[in-house]
Amino acid sequence: MNFSSDNVSGASPQVLRAIVDSNAGAAAPYGMDPWTEDATRRLSEVFEREVSAFLVATGTGCNALALAALAPPGTAILCHEEAHVIEDECGAPEFFTGGGKLVGVPGAGGKVTPEALSSALARYPRGIVRQVQPSALSLSQVTEAGTLYTVAEIRALSDAAHAAGLAVHMDGARFANAVAALGASPAEITWRAGVDVLSFGATKNGAIACEAVVFFDPAKAGDFLFRRKRGGHTVSKGRFLGAQMAGFLDGGHWLDLARGANLRAARLSAGLSALPGVRLPWPTEANEVFPIVPAAMHEALRAAGARYYPWTTRSLGENAAPGEGERMLRLICAFDTDEAAVDAFLAVAARAASVHPAAPF
Amino acid sequence: MNFSSDNVSGASPQVLRAIVDSNAGAAAPYGMDPWTEDATRRLSEVFEREVSAFLVATGTGCNALALAALAPPGTAILCHEEAHVIEDECGAPEFFTGGGKLVGVPGAGGKVTPEALSSALARYPRGIVRQVQPSALSLSQVTEAGTLYTVAEIRALSDAAHAAGLAVHMDGARFANAVAALGASPAEITWRAGVDVLSFGATKNGAIACEAVVFFDPAKAGDFLFRRKRGGHTVSKGRFLGAQMAGFLDGGHWLDLARGANLRAARLSAGLSALPGVRLPWPTEANEVFPIVPAAMHEALRAAGARYYPWTTRSLGENAAPGEGERMLRLICAFDTDEAAVDAFLAVAARAASVHPAAPF
Amino acid sequence: MNFSSDNVSGASPQVLRAIVDSNAGAAAPYGMDPWTEDATRRLSEVFEREVSAFLVATGTGCNALALAALAPPGTAILCHEEAHVIEDECGAPEFFTGGGKLVGVPGAGGKVTPEALSSALARYPRGIVRQVQPSALSLSQVTEAGTLYTVAEIRALSDAAHAAGLAVHMDGARFANAVAALGASPAEITWRAGVDVLSFGATKNGAIACEAVVFFDPAKAGDFLFRRKRGGHTVSKGRFLGAQMAGFLDGGHWLDLARGANLRAARLSAGLSALPGVRLPWPTEANEVFPIVPAAMHEALRAAGARYYPWTTRSLGENAAPGEGERMLRLICAFDTDEAAVDAFLAVAARAASVHPAAPF
Amino acid sequence: MNFSSDNVSGASPQVLRAIVDSNAGAAAPYGMDPWTEDATRRLSEVFEREVSAFLVATGTGCNALALAALAPPGTAILCHEEAHVIEDECGAPEFFTGGGKLVGVPGAGGKVTPEALSSALARYPRGIVRQVQPSALSLSQVTEAGTLYTVAEIRALSDAAHAAGLAVHMDGARFANAVAALGASPAEITWRAGVDVLSFGATKNGAIACEAVVFFDPAKAGDFLFRRKRGGHTVSKGRFLGAQMAGFLDGGHWLDLARGANLRAARLSAGLSALPGVRLPWPTEANEVFPIVPAAMHEALRAAGARYYPWTTRSLGENAAPGEGERMLRLICAFDTDEAAVDAFLAVAARAASVHPAAPF
Repeated sequence: MNFSSDNVSGASPQVLRAIVDSNAGAAAPYGMDPWTEDATRRLSEVFEREVSAFLVATGTGCNALALAALAPPGTAILCHEEAHVIEDECGAPEFFTGGGKLVGVPGAGGKVTPEALSSALARYPRGIVRQVQPSALSLSQVTEAGTLYTVAEIRALSDAAHAAGLAVHMDGARFANAVAALGASPAEITWRAGVDVLSFGATKNGAIACEAVVFFDPAKAGDFLFRRKRGGHTVSKGRFLGAQMAGFLDGGHWLDLARGANLRAARLSAGLSALPGVRLPWPTEANEVFPIVPAAMHEALRAAGARYYPWTTRSLGENAAPGEGERMLRLICAFDTDEAAVDAFLAVAARAASVHPAAPF
Repeated sequence: MNFSSDNVSGASPQVLRAIVDSNAGAAAPYGMDPWTEDATRRLSEVFEREVSAFLVATGTGCNALALAALAPPGTAILCHEEAHVIEDECGAPEFFTGGGKLVGVPGAGGKVTPEALSSALARYPRGIVRQVQPSALSLSQVTEAGTLYTVAEIRALSDAAHAAGLAVHMDGARFANAVAALGASPAEITWRAGVDVLSFGATKNGAIACEAVVFFDPAKAGDFLFRRKRGGHTVSKGRFLGAQMAGFLDGGHWLDLARGANLRAARLSAGLSALPGVRLPWPTEANEVFPIVPAAMHEALRAAGARYYPWTTRSLGENAAPGEGERMLRLICAFDTDEAAVDAFLAVAARAASVHPAAPF
Repeated sequence: MNFSSDNVSGASPQVLRAIVDSNAGAAAPYGMDPWTEDATRRLSEVFEREVSAFLVATGTGCNALALAALAPPGTAILCHEEAHVIEDECGAPEFFTGGGKLVGVPGAGGKVTPEALSSALARYPRGIVRQVQPSALSLSQVTEAGTLYTVAEIRALSDAAHAAGLAVHMDGARFANAVAALGASPAEITWRAGVDVLSFGATKNGAIACEAVVFFDPAKAGDFLFRRKRGGHTVSKGRFLGAQMAGFLDGGHWLDLARGANLRAARLSAGLSALPGVRLPWPTEANEVFPIVPAAMHEALRAAGARYYPWTTRSLGENAAPGEGERMLRLICAFDTDEAAVDAFLAVAARAASVHPAAPF
Repeated sequence: MNFSSDNVSGASPQVLRAIVDSNAGAAAPYGMDPWTEDATRRLSEVFEREVSAFLVATGTGCNALALAALAPPGTAILCHEEAHVIEDECGAPEFFTGGGKLVGVPGAGGKVTPEALSSALARYPRGIVRQVQPSALSLSQVTEAGTLYTVAEIRALSDAAHAAGLAVHMDGARFANAVAALGASPAEITWRAGVDVLSFGATKNGAIACEAVVFFDPAKAGDFLFRRKRGGHTVSKGRFLGAQMAGFLDGGHWLDLARGANLRAARLSAGLSALPGVRLPWPTEANEVFPIVPAAMHEALRAAGARYYPWTTRSLGENAAPGEGERMLRLICAFDTDEAAVDAFLAVAARAASVHPAAPF
């Protein structure tokens, strides 16, 4: 019953096999190997256009390098105020952009709205020399609240960003979960909707350590090869990144993995919603569930060995914040979370709900 | 016959097996897993003292982070003028140190001497506000010329550096080759000889992507955990780094691998030295050979499919530079280079030597 | 009737004379001259202890260098969400700190409260590697809202900051106005109340371009001389900074200048408050007045040639925001603003008030 | 007899008067005042084309900002190995370029030659990801050795730089001395010869603290206004920079001042050359003299109270380095150095020469 994060899992057997299979013989280093070439070709297929893709081993490196490619030193990157890039990367985007400013935009359910974007932009007017100038908008898909932007929402935000002179980055650490859930193609929710650069995550969904910075317009990749090297993110035996990504994409494996995680999250969400005293501040759209539960249920779950993070958020919108006797939880289903774990968790929660019926609020 | 670099090889089967074996079950992320703990314990054993070790996936990341931990923003790091950190890392140390200056010190055979260090220091006197202040000395062991510092040499350089207020870093991308060759213990050629921080390389000698920043005084590691995260170098599923390093160290595997590479290099070196027209500007001490050969031999080798880099260097010291009809080569033996490849290479070289006897210089 | 800023004024005659008087003869460069020595001695007298003071030509340079001395690369600096350092310096603090994060703390009347500080700190817990670690608190005295921290307030905030491991910086661009207004000594509102480093401003109160970074504990100045040089902020003919600062401080001139500015602001504030339809969201405590006035009054003032900035703020606290028919203004009195200008302004305002009586809200 | 530097002087009376004259009344801040406008107009006249000029208070700030505008983060700037930007600015260019690398090019008499430039470029080939990519060439005019590039030399270097994709910066801290000496127009030795950006110095030649970053193609200035602000180099009461520069340029004053300094240096040089035992490693072309003198002469001069810096250099070329009984000196004549001081210095030197005739080397 470990729902603490999708990075507590190992790798999918198919990805692991791809690594092992790539081991024989000599191969050119630094990403000039055939596996990396294959991975790039497959990414181009996935996105239905020729892309420039750069593999790295970490999500933070991926995001920070991508943002630095879009945001000149000393400019501002707008993002949701609880986005991973602003809250959870220990200042990596600020470091890689040479002192850029991450500007948090508030929004319910972890999502930036065009209105909130517009308000934020109004605070950083063009040409006022006292103020950093905005250069990029970063959207997380899946968001930090486990919600999804629709194609229309991405389109609207991209249009607003481009109109204001900002490039659009998408943090797709859980991009596979988003594609699996939305029923839209990878192209539709990225470049066709105005996204310029994507952090395409594989690690959380089954790789050991592999992410791709994807430029939809290869001409805009510029000096990215140098940028990656200078950040220490060019892996020497690049074949092992290439093999991971190719194995991850092969035969739609990436979407199978994400679909499984989403299904378990849906099961978990449905089971919890049915219990008295449990409420969900927003729908479960991908592989993360954020229930607000009676404190006693939280204690029973912990006592039963369930692992997850208690949660606090500024994204509740019009939802009531957890009260005295409540706790908000973050529950993540990984590609390898099994139904049995979900059901065991629900059983404990149900028992706690019947023993300690929720107080009438 | 691929002698181009030790990073064209894959991983050793033992390291690969360790990765596969670590895959089952949930594990804490970001290096808080049991494999990473095991790896650190083993490193402490190897160095005969408790060390603070931080695993990362790249050598450039490892060096740049280590140097940034030693060199405050805006200070100078002294190193050999052909060191990897100054020549081959695309400015990563400058980036991670917030604009530090890498100062190259000349020296024959890729080695810094106390005299050359002293001259360089004299150009950056303490307290002169116009000038960057030196903060660290970085030594490569094995050097870029494939040579080795003796314990006494490291001691002398460390003493001089410490006396001048500099910390001492060792770039040990090929540290295993050095230990295997020197007949000195890992402790003797590092902290007992004054080294403060070591970049301990595993990738070149058999890992897929794993290096460790090793602080011999854990108290000096300071905020390194944050520094690593901010550089995007904290691998999410840290178990896979831990497993690599543990598998690499297990049962002295790392030294077995390095010993093999060194032996093949020695065989290659001896074979080449015996040929007319071939000269070695410095002895072959680890797994790299730098012969100066007749141009015709170079062409014959290339025609036979041998892979290696032609070389230019400022480290020839009193050796004559390659003449019109000569070429300098860099030949690297990896952990998995086999004797057959060495012998095939030597056979081609010998044939070329007999067909085109070297002109009497 | 120019109330747009205190930097639209020239220099006070006494400061200008000091510059002219320092011109004769040769003097050591880079701040090693007798005028700079004299200025430092005077600052030590002003603060009743030996201080380390470093003169620079700009307020942004002064703040950014001071903050960089307190905040190691990649850490967080907390300040009011409308502080000059976070809103008006175009990212200079982020640049000089190597990518530090400025974290805005909300608060009515431009002031940080211990409660708001505590909430902000709770979002950046110690030891969580995903998050930047707080290293400094920056307080503006006078604040951006023209209000003042009392000695007790500074003490409480400093204590909270120190308890959390943060150093305390004070942005004293208008420090003279604060001292003149508070009836407390410079020592009492700085180091005796826990401030570690002060940006001591002279420019806004009568110098041509001179500020001092003042370390109350000289031992903590560390490598500041190098930091200043590396930022390009070491003025070559340092005598001209020294002479300005010495002339500014001589005979209490700095406080006389500030007292005058404060008096005129008080007169302006009192005059405006007496008019129907005008309200002040917070008291006028130094040399800045922020009235909310009927739109028609604003138009009449503009038509009469008055110069000032319309204002928007997030610091209104429980005050009603300006309504449809209202405008918020920022009016600044400089050291050389004369009573006639104030009275002329008030006369126009009064006329507008009587013509267009305020609607009953 | 103070020949230690041109920054030990005060300001010229004309510049000082311009400052005093600009003091009255209100003026827009941050360089939006009429004096700054006037200064820019005058600079455009001086250079016979419309330029974009940005005033700052320090030479190091001027150079570092100019280089950062030309050199993207992580690229290399080539310059003479003893240039001010690489040796004497405490790493400011590295800081402002976000970790750029300053690459020193050797050359006799302080000058870069096309051959040396070409060799240096060969070490940083385009497209090799391990290596920083060159982005700019910085030439000092006057050089650190007091020598001058001819128009043809600048043309040749600029052409080579542009052909290799580098922009060309000129460090003109003593630009006035160069123009006064060369008999070429400011345009001829800058943009007409291929210079893209000039650091135009006024401080050393008579201002109190004023330099200009001059973009000859205003379109290339880009976001320089923001860059200057972010570096803390936007002076608040900008009128005082504008007045200095306008006063400096007015009526050819800047060239009159420089001409005087050059004349005194020529007198000093001629006088010294005539003495037995004195030799000049290169001709005196502007306002700096670098004699190699008998040690006894150096002692006599010091005993007589003469002030200057002993010198060491790597720019001697084919000249013999100072021997055991010799000292190399750097003697600088400022705009206000008077003939009497020169003659007094020469008298002491002559006396020392006659008492201690130079040994026959």
